[in-house]
Amino acid sequence: MEKSSILHIPMSHYAYGEDETHITIRLRAKRGDITNCTLYYGDRSCRQTPVIFTEAKMSVAHSTSLYDLFEVTLENPYKRLCYYFYLESGDESTYYYGDCFCDGPVDDRSEYFQLPFNHRADIVNPPAWAKDAIFYNIFPDSFATSKGYISGKPTTLNYEGNKVNGKLGGTIKGITENVDYLKDLGINAIYINPIFTAGEYHKYDLLDYYHIDPCFGTNEEFKELVDTYHKNGIRVVIDGVFNHCGWKFFAFEDVVQNGEASKYKDWFYGLKFPVVRPDNFEDYPTYDCFGYERMMPKLDLSNKETMEYFVNVGKYWVKEFGIDGWRLDVASEVNDGFWRAFNAGVKEENPDAILIGEVWESANHWLDGTIFDGSMNYDFRKHSRRFFGERSIDAREFGDRITDMYTRYRKKTVFSQLNLLDSHDVSRFLSICDGDVDRYKLAVLFLMTFPGMPSVFYGDEKGIMGVLEKDYRNPMPWDKEETELGKFYKDVIGIRNAEDALRSGEFKVVKADACDHLIGFIRYTKDIEITVLINMFEGEKDISAELETGADVIFSLGLDGNALKAKGCAVIKRVRNKK
Amino acid sequence: MEKSSILHIPMSHYAYGEDETHITIRLRAKRGDITNCTLYYGDRSCRQTPVIFTEAKMSVAHSTSLYDLFEVTLENPYKRLCYYFYLESGDESTYYYGDCFCDGPVDDRSEYFQLPFNHRADIVNPPAWAKDAIFYNIFPDSFATSKGYISGKPTTLNYEGNKVNGKLGGTIKGITENVDYLKDLGINAIYINPIFTAGEYHKYDLLDYYHIDPCFGTNEEFKELVDTYHKNGIRVVIDGVFNHCGWKFFAFEDVVQNGEASKYKDWFYGLKFPVVRPDNFEDYPTYDCFGYERMMPKLDLSNKETMEYFVNVGKYWVKEFGIDGWRLDVASEVNDGFWRAFNAGVKEENPDAILIGEVWESANHWLDGTIFDGSMNYDFRKHSRRFFGERSIDAREFGDRITDMYTRYRKKTVFSQLNLLDSHDVSRFLSICDGDVDRYKLAVLFLMTFPGMPSVFYGDEKGIMGVLEKDYRNPMPWDKEETELGKFYKDVIGIRNAEDALRSGEFKVVKADACDHLIGFIRYTKDIEITVLINMFEGEKDISAELETGADVIFSLGLDGNALKAKGCAVIKRVRNKK
Repeated sequence: MEKSSILHIPMSHYAYGEDETHITIRLRAKRGDITNCTLYYGDRSCRQTPVIFTEAKMSVAHSTSLYDLFEVTLENPYKRLCYYFYLESGDESTYYYGDCFCDGPVDDRSEYFQLPFNHRADIVNPPAWAKDAIFYNIFPDSFATSKGYISGKPTTLNYEGNKVNGKLGGTIKGITENVDYLKDLGINAIYINPIFTAGEYHKYDLLDYYHIDPCFGTNEEFKELVDTYHKNGIRVVIDGVFNHCGWKFFAFEDVVQNGEASKYKDWFYGLKFPVVRPDNFEDYPTYDCFGYERMMPKLDLSNKETMEYFVNVGKYWVKEFGIDGWRLDVASEVNDGFWRAFNAGVKEENPDAILIGEVWESANHWLDGTIFDGSMNYDFRKHSRRFFGERSIDAREFGDRITDMYTRYRKKTVFSQLNLLDSHDVSRFLSICDGDVDRYKLAVLFLMTFPGMPSVFYGDEKGIMGVLEKDYRNPMPWDKEETELGKFYKDVIGIRNAEDALRSGEFKVVKADACDHLIGFIRYTKDIEITVLINMFEGEKDISAELETGADVIFSLGLDGNALKAKGCAVIKRVRNKK
Repeated sequence: MEKSSILHIPMSHYAYGEDETHITIRLRAKRGDITNCTLYYGDRSCRQTPVIFTEAKMSVAHSTSLYDLFEVTLENPYKRLCYYFYLESGDESTYYYGDCFCDGPVDDRSEYFQLPFNHRADIVNPPAWAKDAIFYNIFPDSFATSKGYISGKPTTLNYEGNKVNGKLGGTIKGITENVDYLKDLGINAIYINPIFTAGEYHKYDLLDYYHIDPCFGTNEEFKELVDTYHKNGIRVVIDGVFNHCGWKFFAFEDVVQNGEASKYKDWFYGLKFPVVRPDNFEDYPTYDCFGYERMMPKLDLSNKETMEYFVNVGKYWVKEFGIDGWRLDVASEVNDGFWRAFNAGVKEENPDAILIGEVWESANHWLDGTIFDGSMNYDFRKHSRRFFGERSIDAREFGDRITDMYTRYRKKTVFSQLNLLDSHDVSRFLSICDGDVDRYKLAVLFLMTFPGMPSVFYGDEKGIMGVLEKDYRNPMPWDKEETELGKFYKDVIGIRNAEDALRSGEFKVVKADACDHLIGFIRYTKDIEITVLINMFEGEKDISAELETGADVIFSLGLDGNALKAKGCAVIKRVRNKK
């Protein structure tokens, strides 16, 4: 038995309450090593000693090249659990509990693993609407000046003595007036990059957290936007920039003017006096910044006053404008305490508001239910890039990685991850595919069939390309007629909207061979199982084995009889009993 | 290479800031498998692309039978890190980052592991005094009625219509009057089990969180206790029971009287109306309890009002009485949100106050710095029991387990763990040793030389025995003359107090062979290295190899020339350069 590979972490995504009456327990082992994994669980407050234990067979829920993930979800177990594992590898066996491998169980209940109390307040609980959400991500400067139109013209305005700039003419009104276009596309939520008053066109250098940037419009216009979108069944999430502000923000202005006498001196991180705004990009300032962006001083959100000010910003837009949540910029560089206060404040205003943190990598630390509901899932893009874009990993490696994305969090969390191929910070995925629409479509199909909230970056459906920032933030090509790609987007969005199993079904990779490029996975609920097969193979693939009798093909691309054409794909649906 | 054994968890005790200028990175692998483990770290905000990476060789800081733990502490690295590992196993090599094993590094910095910002506010920061603390744990009913005396007589008093009971006559005044005894013993902190007004003699069924139990004394007498102990350089930690209250607590009385109309109906967990106090032990009540103790209804501390009430209790005793911290009862069954609020409230009153949670097992979940500073380390007792008490594990297994205790947390946390052999909830360790004082002394020596805060349960130094509750809570035998055991306690406490390396030095097992019972470990600071050798072998052990020339033996037990007698022990000190 390869004991050094066995992993179980109490009080984590390896042992947690799905809700008040279901508890999931997982154990990871070296692939193929463990031939029997049995959980024994008891009431840690059991009146009898020794505790009465119940046996639960654990089965391999997922396998990758390296690991088997054993899993069981207990129905109506005790609220307070103590538990241990019995493991067999061929003839060898061991008991595993309390971080030790032991010869047998013991009488003392406290020595086992514990899930001390499946407390209602500690269960991860993202908004219920998240699993059904399909997001459209709008970069406001680039999107629309009015219905079906963007001016492409720069603007410079004066805001209380400071210049604020627009670059391409996008406005709040432009977003509002194009609601029909987005409704027609099939999405049901938008995430808008920053819209508050700030210097640069991207609006990440904030001057005023309480007012819409004048280049974009007014607070009243934003209220109309939210109301209009809500009337159309579309939720509105906006971008919160709290890690840093712009260097003309009133509090920073005050420390520049008043130095150590400033009452805002504790609002900033790493401040040294005198605080001077350096002229040159190269000069390292006497304050911490976002990266080395001297125009974006880092806030110290662990200071109580600062925290209160920005938590109030978070509450204000939820309460007064009815926004449905926040996407939170540079989230991983901010102290946890601020986010917990922000979470509590926002959810107090609206328990159904969503919080999505900008964390590019494995976001487990931030997804315990106390900080964010989900993260910007850049790993989704990274793995898709390798498989669909560069074709540098085979189906097995891709299968391993997407299995990891699914199993690294509590299940509910996966369904509120914001999966993305594109954002305002990365090259357009179509460019990653060298403009090859066929490959790109497969990635989009994957986006619409994987668990979690798909995010479509504005204009992806119109084939915007771009490797550099100036290009991938190009204006929305409103003039362009709907292409085959645009139709494809509508189709796959439509399939996701139509099939509950694609939104809320569990996930499992079923086909992912080494040196192959056909990936297959299922999404399943109690009654329905949907199989998705995607062929990135250079040649045709016979899939007659996968096309079982009685299966309804509900979507296909490049299906020719029982074969998938090179780089084609199929979606297969069939009804059957719970897996 | 056994890739399935390789473990690194970003944003955990595998990657954390020791302080603002030191970052520790760890990686666990199968023992002996990885022949080269190199960390490459860069500034994740580096202005250049690709990021400039710095190489840091990682060495095996600890080995167990199963694992090697590679570790490096970076001095003055960037505040924002991206990093990856290069691993070799013989001829085989791989790169490890982003939860994937890869053929080489990539250009995109976001794909590596990240420690996004070593934020001051997120660094684990227990009170500085913790590492020097030696606790004496007083069960107040059993300790003292006055100087050198306990009456042994029960008391029953009336408190606002409810009976409150004492059993053995211990009082607050009794604790105060025996300060000299404890000072003479050498301890510098006391932890007192519950002292607030409650029905039973153990005082875990609370009636009033704002008043000392009348059987024990008055608030004024408690103030005098704190002042007296502080004058003698002894800190005072008390027991907080917030998971549940007693069933005569005013808020519970109100829900019994007023049912759903009660304004306290949201103060309790799992309440169903009508709320009736069952007559019989066997009857399952219509409310959740601590265990199935119907007289101890479980509070719902996720309810805002309840939370505020009890956080205020936490603050009150710190502010008004100057206590130095709380030991928190049934801590693992309470929702995290309450503890975070409690932590914030208490530390606002006194940043130097300590919070110790009652978590019997691996307490990682509660020790991220936002909840508790340390936990009641029952694992310390469990492993000691096997090695010293039952002799059911050999030195290798014991070495593995104590290495796990040392490496499972961030380093600072280990030093504020409350290590214990005994408490009010378990059999006396001397009984576990079948009354064999020789073996018991070795366990005590281990307690005084392992990192973390030793806790001596009252009367341990006088050889109190007892397997059952009524016995291990026996009255303090004041009449008993100081025994050899009592002198031994003073000696080993004295050694700990005298040697900084035993209090704040790092720890490493250096001798722990299979089928052997000689355990050896070192404690080391920059200048000093102390070696502790403890022999649980049935026969004599030659330790001439361990007794290097130039080493000062600063303590010994059963040392005979160069040999340790059966079940004897030695402490060896030597000065040398930093390890």
